[in-house]
Amino acid sequence: MDEKALYLINYGLYIVGSKTESKINAQISNTVFQVTDKPSVIVISIDKSNYTHEFIEASKLFTISIIAKTAPLSLIGNFGFKSGKNVNKFEKISHLLTKNGLPVVLEHTLGYIECRVVNSIDVFTHTLYIGEVIDAEIFKKDEPMTYAYYHEIKNAQAPKSTPIYQQPKSSKKYVCKICGWVYDPEIGDPDGGIKPGTQFEDIPDNWVCPVCGAAKSDFELLK
Amino acid sequence: MDEKALYLINYGLYIVGSKTESKINAQISNTVFQVTDKPSVIVISIDKSNYTHEFIEASKLFTISIIAKTAPLSLIGNFGFKSGKNVNKFEKISHLLTKNGLPVVLEHTLGYIECRVVNSIDVFTHTLYIGEVIDAEIFKKDEPMTYAYYHEIKNAQAPKSTPIYQQPKSSKKYVCKICGWVYDPEIGDPDGGIKPGTQFEDIPDNWVCPVCGAAKSDFELLK
Repeated sequence: MDEKALYLINYGLYIVGSKTESKINAQISNTVFQVTDKPSVIVISIDKSNYTHEFIEASKLFTISIIAKTAPLSLIGNFGFKSGKNVNKFEKISHLLTKNGLPVVLEHTLGYIECRVVNSIDVFTHTLYIGEVIDAEIFKKDEPMTYAYYHEIKNAQAPKSTPIYQQPKSSKKYVCKICGWVYDPEIGDPDGGIKPGTQFEDIPDNWVCPVCGAAKSDFELLK
Repeated sequence: MDEKALYLINYGLYIVGSKTESKINAQISNTVFQVTDKPSVIVISIDKSNYTHEFIEASKLFTISIIAKTAPLSLIGNFGFKSGKNVNKFEKISHLLTKNGLPVVLEHTLGYIECRVVNSIDVFTHTLYIGEVIDAEIFKKDEPMTYAYYHEIKNAQAPKSTPIYQQPKSSKKYVCKICGWVYDPEIGDPDGGIKPGTQFEDIPDNWVCPVCGAAKSDFELLK
């Protein structure tokens, strides 16, 4: 058995949002598909240990914000590598609330789908939520992000398999211990104000990982 | 509400196979995702009116053959636009049978996943089958087909929005009334032995639609 065959399944990349009586939260999800056309019904899979799971259990409602292919890694980092238990993920993110009070991300998204849970099923560590579509809008016609493309751009900057001794001494790469993103001095982090050609050591101490927001001190030399 | 937002969901394209005591069958599906990692569990959605639905109900087993991006339209046509009620879809298709006797397509596929149904849930016109992975193999490392790419290559040959009067008289396009595939004389159907530059009228009568196998008489002038 070669379980790597499972990596050949195609996925998109979405932000699934929900609410409790007093809060909103959202998380990255790649597991979304349409089940039936009449009525329009969607299924999503949510890890039971995720904060958003509590929110969907409470409200029986969820939104799916569709991420654009052009979205920066920082958007995915904000919703994917942080927990709403510790931070307000929407603090610095432009968003709208639907009539039902559910969050929809407006930055780097193409549209959204809002669903009411009509059924759910327990699958070991996850719950499948089956949701009837109650609202849907398109903001922009463009290509949606795919999980494959996200991994491509995330890894293209420095495949982990690259032995460090093949790198010139002037371009030491550093990897984020939290999310695995690699800082490559040749590329820098232009979105974060770090010009190409900047050595890791010369980056200001208040700089954070563009993907997950981890501190500079959470990086280690890529070996 | 703009239900077109649902078209922004990303999908792959797979061939889902199953068996009864005496037969095998398979169908095209775009609705497959992994739910949990430990154990490895997959969910698929199957239309209750499809023949393969009966087979999965009977055997409680299914395979997912992962289609390569380079697969010809005819492969998708064979499994997607025909019913196993009328034809043996595997008659001319190279395939293997797993230890459990389930079919796996060997032509233009990258690998397969075999699952045992551990749960299922009724969703209006469809059933969601939740399957624990019992076997998986990779044949070839290459890009998997996506639903978006399939539509792109299918439609690139002649967008339906193209007004026919803009076409020179010598390149009248014809559309298959069964599956919507468009014959463009400039492209021909090289896989089917029809050279580029061949007018639709000059195609032999025994030629069939490369996607769904419909007869030449099932085509009409694209307007």
